[in-house]
Amino acid sequence: MYPKSLAELIESFRKLPGVGEKTAERYALWATEMNEEVVNEFAKSLVNVKTKLHKCKICGNLSEDDVCEVCNDSSRNNKMILVVQSPKDVIAMERLEEFRGVYHVLGGLISSSKGVMPEDLSINSLIDRAKNADEVVLATNTTMDGETTAMYLNKLLQENCPDVLVTRIAHGLPSGGFLDYADEMTLAHALSGRNKM
Amino acid sequence: MYPKSLAELIESFRKLPGVGEKTAERYALWATEMNEEVVNEFAKSLVNVKTKLHKCKICGNLSEDDVCEVCNDSSRNNKMILVVQSPKDVIAMERLEEFRGVYHVLGGLISSSKGVMPEDLSINSLIDRAKNADEVVLATNTTMDGETTAMYLNKLLQENCPDVLVTRIAHGLPSGGFLDYADEMTLAHALSGRNKM
Repeated sequence: MYPKSLAELIESFRKLPGVGEKTAERYALWATEMNEEVVNEFAKSLVNVKTKLHKCKICGNLSEDDVCEVCNDSSRNNKMILVVQSPKDVIAMERLEEFRGVYHVLGGLISSSKGVMPEDLSINSLIDRAKNADEVVLATNTTMDGETTAMYLNKLLQENCPDVLVTRIAHGLPSGGFLDYADEMTLAHALSGRNKM
Repeated sequence: MYPKSLAELIESFRKLPGVGEKTAERYALWATEMNEEVVNEFAKSLVNVKTKLHKCKICGNLSEDDVCEVCNDSSRNNKMILVVQSPKDVIAMERLEEFRGVYHVLGGLISSSKGVMPEDLSINSLIDRAKNADEVVLATNTTMDGETTAMYLNKLLQENCPDVLVTRIAHGLPSGGFLDYADEMTLAHALSGRNKM
């Protein structure tokens, strides 16, 4: 139905997260209408992320260099390590412009349903780094897998680095949240974690 | 904030229709996580649509060859020409598997607001083709620009090809449509175009 090269491009776009047939078709047709330079630039940038980006050898974040910008920044407090699941969490955190410590990217969460075991994640290097740290903030998602991973890491850190303060990001009602829309778990956390005003 | 190559890829994804910062970021991070072969394939297919696809020299549809599959198909009735705005309309029509005539892609619609004039569209070649046709179906959108274009083409066709039957696709309530949600124009068309049951 489509010319071959168009069909192939639609197939490629369909692989993007959350993109169905209709959207992939719209994206591909956009490419047919765009000028060649823009499309070639697009293709080049796709190839570039695979060739130029790799994991920071210290924290596991994405970087073009051996060591990422955060780990390389001497103004950051490397005694404070914030542990996250993936590079996109680092991006979200950095956007805040509030956290001045460093990161540790696990590369996933422990998950029995997905068959992800502790040895699949960058946990050994975290323990090594934690030995020289003051505080490790466990900032995995507040989902089941995120909680499991946080609990597992907490236990391991207590055993191996008894002098390090291990903390967990706060649970509670999100900003702009409605009490009557919040699920019970969220409400329970919001209540038990209440602060003096 | 992002490594350079990631920022560039996000920029590229942002150019896609309807894609904002968050979605572009999600797409780009997908690429960092995908295996290299898939991403290179993606890049290649982008380049391919620009190098391999061009306009069919008869109808203006997208094609890898000089003449598109439809125009090349001798089982299609080339005395019946369906006129559309763009290649995506051809794709939508072909998906129906109902129309057995051929197409004519205008490459746009006459639009005073966007400054698109009749001479910017493939109209001369339509008139030439229409001289040998039995019927020309004007299947431009039922928007203001689509109607303007249809009226303009109808007048031109009547003048230049008086023997050709010029028709317009039906206006009315879409399938699954609710009367109380339909706008007045649609309802008026649905009523005036009513058919005997």
